[in-house]
Amino acid sequence: MSAIDELAAELAKLPGVGRKTALRLTYHLLKQPPETSRRLAAALERLVERVRRCSVCANLTEEDPCAICGDPRRDRGILCVVEEASDISAIERTGEFHGIYHVLGGRLSPLDGIGPEDLGVQQLVDRVTAGGVREVILATNPSLEGEATALYVQRQVGPHVAVVSRIARGIPVGGDLEYADGVTIAQAISARREM
Amino acid sequence: MSAIDELAAELAKLPGVGRKTALRLTYHLLKQPPETSRRLAAALERLVERVRRCSVCANLTEEDPCAICGDPRRDRGILCVVEEASDISAIERTGEFHGIYHVLGGRLSPLDGIGPEDLGVQQLVDRVTAGGVREVILATNPSLEGEATALYVQRQVGPHVAVVSRIARGIPVGGDLEYADGVTIAQAISARREM
Repeated sequence: MSAIDELAAELAKLPGVGRKTALRLTYHLLKQPPETSRRLAAALERLVERVRRCSVCANLTEEDPCAICGDPRRDRGILCVVEEASDISAIERTGEFHGIYHVLGGRLSPLDGIGPEDLGVQQLVDRVTAGGVREVILATNPSLEGEATALYVQRQVGPHVAVVSRIARGIPVGGDLEYADGVTIAQAISARREM
Repeated sequence: MSAIDELAAELAKLPGVGRKTALRLTYHLLKQPPETSRRLAAALERLVERVRRCSVCANLTEEDPCAICGDPRRDRGILCVVEEASDISAIERTGEFHGIYHVLGGRLSPLDGIGPEDLGVQQLVDRVTAGGVREVILATNPSLEGEATALYVQRQVGPHVAVVSRIARGIPVGGDLEYADGVTIAQAISARREM
């Protein structure tokens, strides 16, 4: 296989990248200075060589424990449970949460063969029973599997902590009632707050 | 910058890849076996180290002359002029053309500062005046710049070759008259052929 076809084949393995897009990207890179491709290759190498799971919270990190677990200014009394490490980035970008995290590494999904033993729930229970955690926030996605996962985690963790909470579901800020689905609208109404 | 942010920043430089897509691709790669990222990195390195321009036709190739210029079965009497090396791949996939190629490396575009001296027209004239070419097919894109480029090349090459032809414009196969633009329909009618 030629170098062009080989790179196109590798790029086409990425999600959302078809054969034509992969070829277009390859020809684009051939028009750039060689440093563009070299920097991309170096970043890929660095990613697989350096990035590991944090041994405390299972966040993706280059140092163990991760920057959040190692930060003395974070409130260790509030623990936010997420499905994936990428969810931590999304929450951190808001700058509104100052507690610590726990990454389950997925969600309960019988169809995909993912059961409780595949998620880091036992490690979570161990962290909570070790003491110091006042509240566990369940920030799994508000999907069918995410809700089932939240329910399961709540049952496991509930007996060991004072408060278990769930992130609010409702109409997204900037969203449009007209285009929201019925379940979301029902949730937004039942979870209404006095102004 | 973290390894995750660094790879995302490099991926976001690719055309059509935004910041969110770049992060999504990065997290996708972190979920794959490390070989996936390593193979992609190796393919990028191979691309920039091995791929060169063919000294005869300016096609992108790992061997000089390229596989097409070096193939004794190709008809050296028919020479197809294209804007980019990627156009050769598109024509070769049809399996319908058995002549040789010449890559201009772009098209006349005064707005982008690309004039005749930036295209490989002189090399083309040299190849044609060296003899043996019966027909030059101008396969630049049927865009404004592509047409201007075809006209310019025709004037330079015309005096040295028996036939200069232009690829047909018309309704694409599987296309829909209703959605074709007026200029294309006009071309399709004026270039009609007896059945």
